[in-house]
Amino acid sequence: MRMVDLIELKKNKQVLTKEQIHFIIEGYCNQRIPDYQMSALLMSICFNGLTKQETAFLTDEMLHSGDIIDLSAIEGIKVDKHSTGGVGDKTSLVLGPMIAACGVKVAKMSGRGLGHTGGTLDKLESIPGLNINVNREDFIKQVNEIGIAIIGQSTNLVPADQKMYALRDVTATVDCIPLIASSIMSKKLASGSDTILLDVKYGKGAFMKTKEEARKLAYTMIEIGQHLGKDTRAVISNMNQPLGNAIGNSLEVIEAINILKGEGPKDLLNLCLEAGSHMLVQAKRCQNEAEALQLLKQVIVDGSALNKLKEMVYYQHGNIDVIDNPNLFKQAKIILPVKAKKEGFVKELEAKTLGIISMKLGGGRLTKDDTIDHSAGIILNKKIGDYCNSEDILAYFYTDKEIDQELIDEFYSAYQIVDFFVEKPTLIDEILV
Amino acid sequence: MRMVDLIELKKNKQVLTKEQIHFIIEGYCNQRIPDYQMSALLMSICFNGLTKQETAFLTDEMLHSGDIIDLSAIEGIKVDKHSTGGVGDKTSLVLGPMIAACGVKVAKMSGRGLGHTGGTLDKLESIPGLNINVNREDFIKQVNEIGIAIIGQSTNLVPADQKMYALRDVTATVDCIPLIASSIMSKKLASGSDTILLDVKYGKGAFMKTKEEARKLAYTMIEIGQHLGKDTRAVISNMNQPLGNAIGNSLEVIEAINILKGEGPKDLLNLCLEAGSHMLVQAKRCQNEAEALQLLKQVIVDGSALNKLKEMVYYQHGNIDVIDNPNLFKQAKIILPVKAKKEGFVKELEAKTLGIISMKLGGGRLTKDDTIDHSAGIILNKKIGDYCNSEDILAYFYTDKEIDQELIDEFYSAYQIVDFFVEKPTLIDEILV
Repeated sequence: MRMVDLIELKKNKQVLTKEQIHFIIEGYCNQRIPDYQMSALLMSICFNGLTKQETAFLTDEMLHSGDIIDLSAIEGIKVDKHSTGGVGDKTSLVLGPMIAACGVKVAKMSGRGLGHTGGTLDKLESIPGLNINVNREDFIKQVNEIGIAIIGQSTNLVPADQKMYALRDVTATVDCIPLIASSIMSKKLASGSDTILLDVKYGKGAFMKTKEEARKLAYTMIEIGQHLGKDTRAVISNMNQPLGNAIGNSLEVIEAINILKGEGPKDLLNLCLEAGSHMLVQAKRCQNEAEALQLLKQVIVDGSALNKLKEMVYYQHGNIDVIDNPNLFKQAKIILPVKAKKEGFVKELEAKTLGIISMKLGGGRLTKDDTIDHSAGIILNKKIGDYCNSEDILAYFYTDKEIDQELIDEFYSAYQIVDFFVEKPTLIDEILV
Repeated sequence: MRMVDLIELKKNKQVLTKEQIHFIIEGYCNQRIPDYQMSALLMSICFNGLTKQETAFLTDEMLHSGDIIDLSAIEGIKVDKHSTGGVGDKTSLVLGPMIAACGVKVAKMSGRGLGHTGGTLDKLESIPGLNINVNREDFIKQVNEIGIAIIGQSTNLVPADQKMYALRDVTATVDCIPLIASSIMSKKLASGSDTILLDVKYGKGAFMKTKEEARKLAYTMIEIGQHLGKDTRAVISNMNQPLGNAIGNSLEVIEAINILKGEGPKDLLNLCLEAGSHMLVQAKRCQNEAEALQLLKQVIVDGSALNKLKEMVYYQHGNIDVIDNPNLFKQAKIILPVKAKKEGFVKELEAKTLGIISMKLGGGRLTKDDTIDHSAGIILNKKIGDYCNSEDILAYFYTDKEIDQELIDEFYSAYQIVDFFVEKPTLIDEILV
C-alpha cells in the first residue's frame, strides 16, 4: 500500500477501507507517513468528506493510537459530557457535582483553554491548592469513594489526534466536520466513559457558525458513538453571546458555585438542567427526563450538589473555604466598570471578542506556554435583550494589568445597542438523541 | 502574511494576488514554508483551480526562482518547441535540424526520460561521444556559428519547479492543469527562447487522457505565454499509439535520421512538417504556413537538414559516421521478433504499456539513478489500422537482457486485434494559435 495512492483515491472521492485507514493512522503516528502527505490527504478530506463508516473507522484508529482508559474498576454506568467550546462555559463545574449528587459516577478528564475559549482545568486550578495531576489508581479510587473526579488528561491520550490537530492548525484543515467529529469522539471514547452527552455550540463565538452546521456535527458524532457502541446524545445550544455572566477562571468558578447554591444566571442553570436530565437517563438513574429534572432540582435545593463539589475539592487538596467565601479567591487588583455610551437594547454581544478581551486581561493564553491570571476576566452586567440607559454599567473588567483605551474600544465593538426592542434569545435549540 | 491564511483563501475559492503568490514561491524555495503547507495548498489548487492571472503570476514567480538563460547574444528570433511527453516521440531530433537548416536559430535545452516516456538527452547520448554538458558560453557560440545546439538543462533552471514537482509526485497533486501548465511554461520561459511551439499529446500514453483536457492544457499554456509576452502556439496530437515505429534511444535516433533522409514513418514526418511550419512562421522566417511547408520539404530533399544534424553532432563531439551507417551504433545482443497470435486489424496499441516494456528491456529508467542501455527498445511492425496474418511479426524487441514470458504477455496485452476493418487514426487534431 502506498500513501500517494490513498490520497489519490480520496481526491477522486473514493471510499477508504478500514485497512487503508489503519495504514494511514498507524503510519502517520510511527513517522512512516510524512506530514506533507498527511496534509494533502486532510485537504482532500475537507473537499470530499468521509462517509459515516470511514469516520467511524478513522475515530476507532485514532482512539487506539494511545492509552485507552479502563474505568471498569468503577462500579455502575460512568457518564461524560463534552462541550465543543465556548466563552463563559462552566457547565462541567456545575453538572459534575449535580450528577454525582444524584448518585451517578462522573470520571472526567478535561483540557486547558487556548485562545478565546477557556478550559475546565484552568478554572478548577483557580481554587487554591487544587490538584488536577491525579494518577490512574487514585482517580479510580476517588470516583469509587465520592462519585466524582475531574482531572487532567493523560498525555498519551489519542496521540494521533495531537499530531493531526497540530498539522490541521497550520494547513487550514481544521474546519471539516468529519475531522472535528473524529477528533472529539476519539478523545471521549479513549477516556473510557459509558455514555457521552455532547453540548454542540453554534454562533459567532463557536467553531460552528450556524445551527445547521452544529446539527451536522452533532449527528456525525452521534453516529460515531452508535457505531462504536456508546450511548451518545447531543444538545444544540447557541453561543452568540457568552454563557452566564462570568468570563475568566475564578469568576466562572464563583458563578458555578452560585448556581449550585440556587442562585446565578438562568441560561446557565437551564442548560445544566437540560443536559443533566439526559445524562441521568443515559445512566439509567431515571426513567425519563422529567423525573431526572426533578431529581436535579432537588440536589440543588437540598444542598447535596454543592456538598459534592466541596467533597471533590477536598479530595483533590483544594481549599474548600473558598466555596462558602469567594473573597478567599485571589482578587484582581483592578475592577473597572465599563459604562454604556448610549441607551437602548443590547442586540449583539460577540462572545469571541469578549473571550479575546478576557484573555488579554490575563484570563487566558495565546500560546500553550503562557501563564494565566486566575482572577482576571469579565463580569457581564447586560446581555442580549437587556435594556440599558447610557451610563449603565455594561460589564466589569477584572485584571492586574493596565487597561488601555484600545481594549475598551474593542469591548464596545462587541456590544451592539439599538433603539428598538430586542427579545432575549433562547439558549437551547434542540436535543438530538 | 501567513501561509495558513493563504491556504484558507484558496480552499475557499478566493483569488490569490501577485504578492501572495510571490510570498508562497519565494518562501517555499527558501525553506520558510514547509512541505506540509505547500502540499495542502497544492491540493486545494487541484480542487479549486487557478485563474488565468494567478496561473501567469505563479509561472512568473517560478521562472524567477533560478537562472534565466539570456540568449540575447544570439542574433535573430530563437524558437523552441516542447512536447508534453509521449512514447516514441523523437520530434525534437528531426525538427531541430530542419528548422536550423531553414536558417532559424534553435537553442534548445532538453531533459532526460523517466518511466514510460523517453527524453531527448538520452536519445542524443546514444550517438557515441556526443556531449550534452555544454557551458553557457559555448552553447551561445555554437548556436551563433551553426544555428543549432541541443544540450542538458542547467541544474538551477526553475528550482521552484524541481521542488514542487517532487512534492506533487508523492502527494497526488500532479494531475492539475494549471500546475502542469505553470511547470512546463516556467521551464520553457526560463530557457530564454523567443517563441514556443507546444506539442500537447492526449490518449492512453499521455498525461492528458482526452482531447478536451489536452485543449484545456494547451490554452492555459498559450495564455501564460501571451501574459508574459511570448508567441506561443500548440499542436494537439494523439498519443493512443506510439509516434513512429521506433521506441528506445538509438532506435529512435535512427528513425529520426531516416526522416531527415526522406524516409521513415509518415505520421512522424507529418507531425514534424506541421509543427515546423508554425515554428518558421513564429520566427518570421516565412509569411505563412504553406510557404513554410515548402521550405521544410526542400531542406529534406536537398539534404541540408541531414547535414545540419551532422554539423551539430560534430560540434558536440559525437561520431558523425553513425548517421550514414547506423550499424555503428551499439547493437543489441538479442533481436526478438514477436509474432501475432491471430489475424485481423490492429485496433488498439497501448503506448504506455509499450513504453514500460521498452524501459524493462533496458531502454528507460524507473528511478533517476538507473542507467540506460541505449541500444534497447522496440521496433513496431504493425500499428493501428494495419492488417496482420497470424504469424506476421508485430514487433521486434531489442535488448541485452533475457526476455521472460511475462514481458511477452504484457506486450500482447497492449495489442488489440479485431476481425473487422479499422481505420488508421489521424495524428494531429488541431493547431491552436
